[in-house]
Amino acid sequence: MNTQLLEKYARLIVKTGINLEKNQTLVINSPIESAPFSRALAETAYKEGARDVVIVWRDELFTKIRYTHAPEEVFSEYPDWQKELYMTYVRQGAAFVSIAASDPELLKDIEPGRIAKAQKAGSTALREYRERLMSNQNTWCVVSVPTAAWAKKVFPDLSEEAAIARLWELICQVVRVDTPDPVAAWNSHKQNLQQRLDFLNGHNFKTLHYKNSLGTDLTVELPEGHIWLGGSEHTPDGREFIANMPTEEVFTLPQRTGVNGKVVSSKPLNYNGNLIDGFMLTFTDGKIVDFTAKTGYESLKHLLETDEGASYLGEVALVPFDSPISNANILFYNTLFDENASCHLAFGKAYPVCLANSENYTAEELAQKGVNDSLVHEDFMLGTADLEILGTTRQGQQIPVFKNGNFAF
Amino acid sequence: MNTQLLEKYARLIVKTGINLEKNQTLVINSPIESAPFSRALAETAYKEGARDVVIVWRDELFTKIRYTHAPEEVFSEYPDWQKELYMTYVRQGAAFVSIAASDPELLKDIEPGRIAKAQKAGSTALREYRERLMSNQNTWCVVSVPTAAWAKKVFPDLSEEAAIARLWELICQVVRVDTPDPVAAWNSHKQNLQQRLDFLNGHNFKTLHYKNSLGTDLTVELPEGHIWLGGSEHTPDGREFIANMPTEEVFTLPQRTGVNGKVVSSKPLNYNGNLIDGFMLTFTDGKIVDFTAKTGYESLKHLLETDEGASYLGEVALVPFDSPISNANILFYNTLFDENASCHLAFGKAYPVCLANSENYTAEELAQKGVNDSLVHEDFMLGTADLEILGTTRQGQQIPVFKNGNFAF
Repeated sequence: MNTQLLEKYARLIVKTGINLEKNQTLVINSPIESAPFSRALAETAYKEGARDVVIVWRDELFTKIRYTHAPEEVFSEYPDWQKELYMTYVRQGAAFVSIAASDPELLKDIEPGRIAKAQKAGSTALREYRERLMSNQNTWCVVSVPTAAWAKKVFPDLSEEAAIARLWELICQVVRVDTPDPVAAWNSHKQNLQQRLDFLNGHNFKTLHYKNSLGTDLTVELPEGHIWLGGSEHTPDGREFIANMPTEEVFTLPQRTGVNGKVVSSKPLNYNGNLIDGFMLTFTDGKIVDFTAKTGYESLKHLLETDEGASYLGEVALVPFDSPISNANILFYNTLFDENASCHLAFGKAYPVCLANSENYTAEELAQKGVNDSLVHEDFMLGTADLEILGTTRQGQQIPVFKNGNFAF
Repeated sequence: MNTQLLEKYARLIVKTGINLEKNQTLVINSPIESAPFSRALAETAYKEGARDVVIVWRDELFTKIRYTHAPEEVFSEYPDWQKELYMTYVRQGAAFVSIAASDPELLKDIEPGRIAKAQKAGSTALREYRERLMSNQNTWCVVSVPTAAWAKKVFPDLSEEAAIARLWELICQVVRVDTPDPVAAWNSHKQNLQQRLDFLNGHNFKTLHYKNSLGTDLTVELPEGHIWLGGSEHTPDGREFIANMPTEEVFTLPQRTGVNGKVVSSKPLNYNGNLIDGFMLTFTDGKIVDFTAKTGYESLKHLLETDEGASYLGEVALVPFDSPISNANILFYNTLFDENASCHLAFGKAYPVCLANSENYTAEELAQKGVNDSLVHEDFMLGTADLEILGTTRQGQQIPVFKNGNFAF
């Protein structure tokens, strides 16, 4: 990755991703391996007027050592100082950039119960922090840069160096950093997504019915007042930002108890360093009442057992089968990319911003209106080349939404 | 560095350095560049029964970006979460390993006032933490591993790779990792240092008079009840540990107001990424009343102005000119090595453990007994090949302590 592209990418994230304000603090969650990129981000942020930059480093090889050797009791603990770290900055109105670049198979030999404990302890401790981000109180952006282990998993036949270079190339392409003016390219991309939002919000569908040859046959009810979002999001005081780069999806929330039928996964899900693949879920009145998985059954079980809300859905997202990331025809083993190559749903917590006036409702009122809550939010893919989605409006009109894997309009 | 030596070094630090207890937590302060070594330390610690390992990563290139670009006000702040991090673990009785491996010239272009502010904010926030370590409430150990920038400064004529390899070789030599049984080698080293301690503690000197051809002519009074320490130290409940690896020094504390005369530095001092070199200090009744420096005058001024105690001495340490590190005849630009190649003194805070019964005294009583206090503790070197030190006992007897740079006995 040459320095010029690195700086262009950093600038896109600071300007368009988190849309940094003067005197705002930026918190970067970074693998130690991505240090050159995080330094470029930090320098760009200071030059654009950041008050301060805090880098929270992590090292997944140390994480693996800890999961392998530490006594089990430590995984139920989450240190107060680490909670205070996030709470301090989220309360100050900081912007958050998170670099997602894990080795997809890092934790495959770790007993899933240890990971589930740590995941739950972290989600519980950071609940307020995560709720603030998921309701867009702060601007935030998830991005990726290649790391050696991840690149080698995506391109197993290339040398490490070549795999990293190829992954950089792909990332630059799908985040439009390879265009002359990435900020302008994103503005035009946002307008394209807006047309889809206008169609979906205009029809105000009551249900979507999914069907494909893998065996998916699922009806998802959408609550009164649901809003389709995509492209950019806004903080309550109107500051625009892009929560995921890349992003190709439009998404809303399901009615918590309104999901019925079967769904079959179309891509593996990388959950905390474990792959879950070839899974089928059966829903009755919103709840997953049965599931199977060819790979990672235990991990899926732990995920669904995190809490009551983990076995209900929290997101409905539409991505055409012919999307730039999908057409690259590469499995990234990284949700940030794979979710933007495929229609998907999410286990767990819903984004309250997808419900009109949600900022005026209490947690109880949100639950009554069908907004699912959970410590987890995990996307999984179901899009295929033959996916059909039929929408039914509140007036009973049936309108094709997807035909042959792509938007029908 | 081959894996076997890395593991041997890690084991020496865990067993002999911090002398880890079962169920103790280990906190490692590590540059991100030293990740392979810190991972080896963590794995060794878990295998030796650590309850948990916490790695506090730092990246000095990011530190430099921050010093260069952040608004000045942020340097007066020290985040509460970071204070809580250290206080949590020090109160839990954790062991601390700190990896000292800075680029000696990292911050040479940074305005020293910015560094001084950050240094003071950090020292103030971490006062209790540092006091606990300096009074040996917790076991701790400072060690080094080569980093590219540091190795290139020590061996400017070698390639980066060769410089790192050469520095590893030297470190393994001076920390005795190249011996068949490093733990045994350290036991025998501790016994050698014990002979020097016996001589010095046996004579209970009232003053030491330093003289050499550089212009040093200094009298240092030692308080009633001072204790010479060296090699290993002990926690209040008797757990032995080695605070510095390598260590060749024996040391005690001066009577705060009993230092008079002139001292000329014999090696540069690397203070927060700035070199201070060729400096002369004039003392009257313990206080530095005048100073000059060929290099880094402003940095020295900021150091001495940190607080009242910074311009008094806190440590008197003796190292023969013919010591293993000194004989390598290499300037390491790293206090951990350079202080163990030369007699030295320290600006600022004294180690209370060098005074008998100090654990029973209040801070006020310690001050009355001549124990200096400060936010800083910075060693500087004065040893030369012609250094003479003459001791005077409390009975007025004059006994040579150093002749021609080495112990006289």
